[in-house]
Amino acid sequence: MKIDLEYAEFYKKLEELSAWKEKAEKALETLKGFVADGSQPVGWLTLPEDYDKDEIARIRDAAARIRQQCEVFVVIGVGGSYLGARSAMDFLWGKDRNAFRKEGPAICFAGTDLDGEELARLLEYCEGKSVCVNVISKSGTTTEPAVAFRFFRGWMEEKYGKEAASRIFVTTDERPRPGTLKELALKEGYECFKVPGNIGGRYSVLSAVGLLPIAVSGADLGALLDGAAKAKEEFTNNPFETNLCMQYAAMRNLFYNDGKKLELFSFFRPAADAIGEWLKQLFAESEGKEGKGIYPCSAVYTRDLHSIGQYVQEGERMFFETMVLFDPALSDPTVPNAAENVDGLNYLAGKNLSYINDNAAKATCLAHSNGGVPVLCLRFPRPSEECLGYLYYFFELACALSGTMLGINPFDQPGVEQYKTEMFRNLGKPGYTK
Amino acid sequence: MKIDLEYAEFYKKLEELSAWKEKAEKALETLKGFVADGSQPVGWLTLPEDYDKDEIARIRDAAARIRQQCEVFVVIGVGGSYLGARSAMDFLWGKDRNAFRKEGPAICFAGTDLDGEELARLLEYCEGKSVCVNVISKSGTTTEPAVAFRFFRGWMEEKYGKEAASRIFVTTDERPRPGTLKELALKEGYECFKVPGNIGGRYSVLSAVGLLPIAVSGADLGALLDGAAKAKEEFTNNPFETNLCMQYAAMRNLFYNDGKKLELFSFFRPAADAIGEWLKQLFAESEGKEGKGIYPCSAVYTRDLHSIGQYVQEGERMFFETMVLFDPALSDPTVPNAAENVDGLNYLAGKNLSYINDNAAKATCLAHSNGGVPVLCLRFPRPSEECLGYLYYFFELACALSGTMLGINPFDQPGVEQYKTEMFRNLGKPGYTK
Repeated sequence: MKIDLEYAEFYKKLEELSAWKEKAEKALETLKGFVADGSQPVGWLTLPEDYDKDEIARIRDAAARIRQQCEVFVVIGVGGSYLGARSAMDFLWGKDRNAFRKEGPAICFAGTDLDGEELARLLEYCEGKSVCVNVISKSGTTTEPAVAFRFFRGWMEEKYGKEAASRIFVTTDERPRPGTLKELALKEGYECFKVPGNIGGRYSVLSAVGLLPIAVSGADLGALLDGAAKAKEEFTNNPFETNLCMQYAAMRNLFYNDGKKLELFSFFRPAADAIGEWLKQLFAESEGKEGKGIYPCSAVYTRDLHSIGQYVQEGERMFFETMVLFDPALSDPTVPNAAENVDGLNYLAGKNLSYINDNAAKATCLAHSNGGVPVLCLRFPRPSEECLGYLYYFFELACALSGTMLGINPFDQPGVEQYKTEMFRNLGKPGYTK
Repeated sequence: MKIDLEYAEFYKKLEELSAWKEKAEKALETLKGFVADGSQPVGWLTLPEDYDKDEIARIRDAAARIRQQCEVFVVIGVGGSYLGARSAMDFLWGKDRNAFRKEGPAICFAGTDLDGEELARLLEYCEGKSVCVNVISKSGTTTEPAVAFRFFRGWMEEKYGKEAASRIFVTTDERPRPGTLKELALKEGYECFKVPGNIGGRYSVLSAVGLLPIAVSGADLGALLDGAAKAKEEFTNNPFETNLCMQYAAMRNLFYNDGKKLELFSFFRPAADAIGEWLKQLFAESEGKEGKGIYPCSAVYTRDLHSIGQYVQEGERMFFETMVLFDPALSDPTVPNAAENVDGLNYLAGKNLSYINDNAAKATCLAHSNGGVPVLCLRFPRPSEECLGYLYYFFELACALSGTMLGINPFDQPGVEQYKTEMFRNLGKPGYTK
């Protein structure tokens, strides 16, 4: 397992990077201090080594039963409770995995929003099919998943009666408290998995939050956790000079200090689109506070070069770009030769698509750099569960380091309460007054 | 058909809006001048009235045959040649339309990128199924769709022999030139539809580019074009004071002058996600030049309030937000009552989800405004083909007006050639040298 960080040679700020070495090293020490004193939720930092082996065995067992038992697996959760799992499934099996699948249940997400038409469509799709549900909510009280689960719980009980309990799986905080999902699960006898108290939602993909749905999709959890363990080994031990995670965190702060307030994550792989969504939550929620932070955007190339490409090349110069590249996938078709060559593409005949795509990446890196957008290229290994675990850990650590260097707390999210408070007032939730 | 533009009352800049009246009116006159003198490609401006009725009849006829004839309809195109159609289908039938559909073919997009795994998955999915193909490329020489079409053309000819020609539909520039798709189509006998010469890719959704795939999805083209015609009537004739399209274009320039370099389009409707992608191309490619332009981002709420919400509330204050809202859809479930109320949601029992969602929108508008992000709310009618046609025209005109007021040419895209030139050099395309 190996990652390359290629700085576009055209960006002149690189000589300043060493000035950030001390800050980056101090940030890593700070995070390690949180592990020791438990004052911040950094359970994700040691998770690849100290995860609960018995629970992983139960997750594997439950996933095997779910794959046997149902045609539709409904995963109910929002934010960190769905972005990780969805990013993994899309990355491993493609975005059209439900329509294209040959085995295993369709895996559908619910409780991500309050749109009634979306919910009605999913309920209608489930009609007449065998269904299992995994409801995921750390607090167990978040509105969107709670509303969706009220619908699905009713639907399941009407369809299955007492058997419904064996088809409902709950991932939530370990502590049963009144009015929470854990209390309900104990009462009804739903199998429970835990969101460890010392891991926040956006850092939870490698806990049961992500692992149960990912296992149901058919992925190898062992390889996923191994990849994360390799990243932990490398990036929490190596010195700055050989530690690409620390260097990347430092680069982000260097760019930000230089007036780049927007980071564009770009992928040359459509299946990585949802990794972009996972990164957006990770960085936006960790860093966007106290009037600070780099705003994360994402794009899939070459697709979006035909969309935002013009702007990236010639618009306002307020961003830098982080290209997240992967070594070629196993499936890599070759452009066929054509006798007549009417489309003029024979200059590509015999080439693998990965070769063409990689040349597009090199060309884009050069063009954008020349256009005044600093480009970092992070090259990860061939797409696989191991690569994915490595990537998750890399970015979680980079985000925590980067936020710590920025001087904010990368583990809280005080700003998300404000619209909720307004909304609960409008809706007359008990305890909230106009 | 009616649209409301609600400015969040908290933003203090509104009194300055009238100062932009003259510029907005002048921009509209400029666009009308282009219609008269043909010096810029503004065919989309009059399209809802002067479209080719015979071609629409042919599109309807072809769509009916395609729906009869195949299980998978592969739409090959990139940028403006797929974003419009995809946004319409997702908006009308939901993002999971292929997995959830009850009738009609699965509609899959190809030729949007150079990823081999994605292409291999789609080819494998087509194996053993009845397939039709629509290849869409204005120039007829764009690399991504050309590569995908070379694969699919070979696949179709191997499977269907001479019958393949009756299953391949080409949407391209009217003029046959050597080495273009039109030349090939004439030679092979593929049915052709036209991208009018005076309509650029990102303004082409209501031409055959969008209309054939949209018709295959089962949508009512008449209602779609009617909606656009209503928008044309309203927004190209009404004076500034009652013209919300001109006012919106003026607001965008006002915000930009005030240092807001990023526009966040937010939807409280997951099915509108791809409208966000369509808007990104429209605005980024039209405005992002000469070091200028507002960078367009998009989000789906309440989903992404659990992702980028923290940043929007408390991060850097360099953006404004445009909420694109819709009246409630016909399908609008009611939260059921629960005897035990373990989840504490009975305060919502009997309420429609649209009521809860709308309260979330109001609360978010207030919270973000209070947090220092100016919010515009555009409220469109109930989701339908008519609403969609109205929306497309509204934003196309707003974009052209806004770009004209900004002082750039909203109809060219000079910057997209730079990475292509580098790429063609790397790949050894004839005519390009290292």
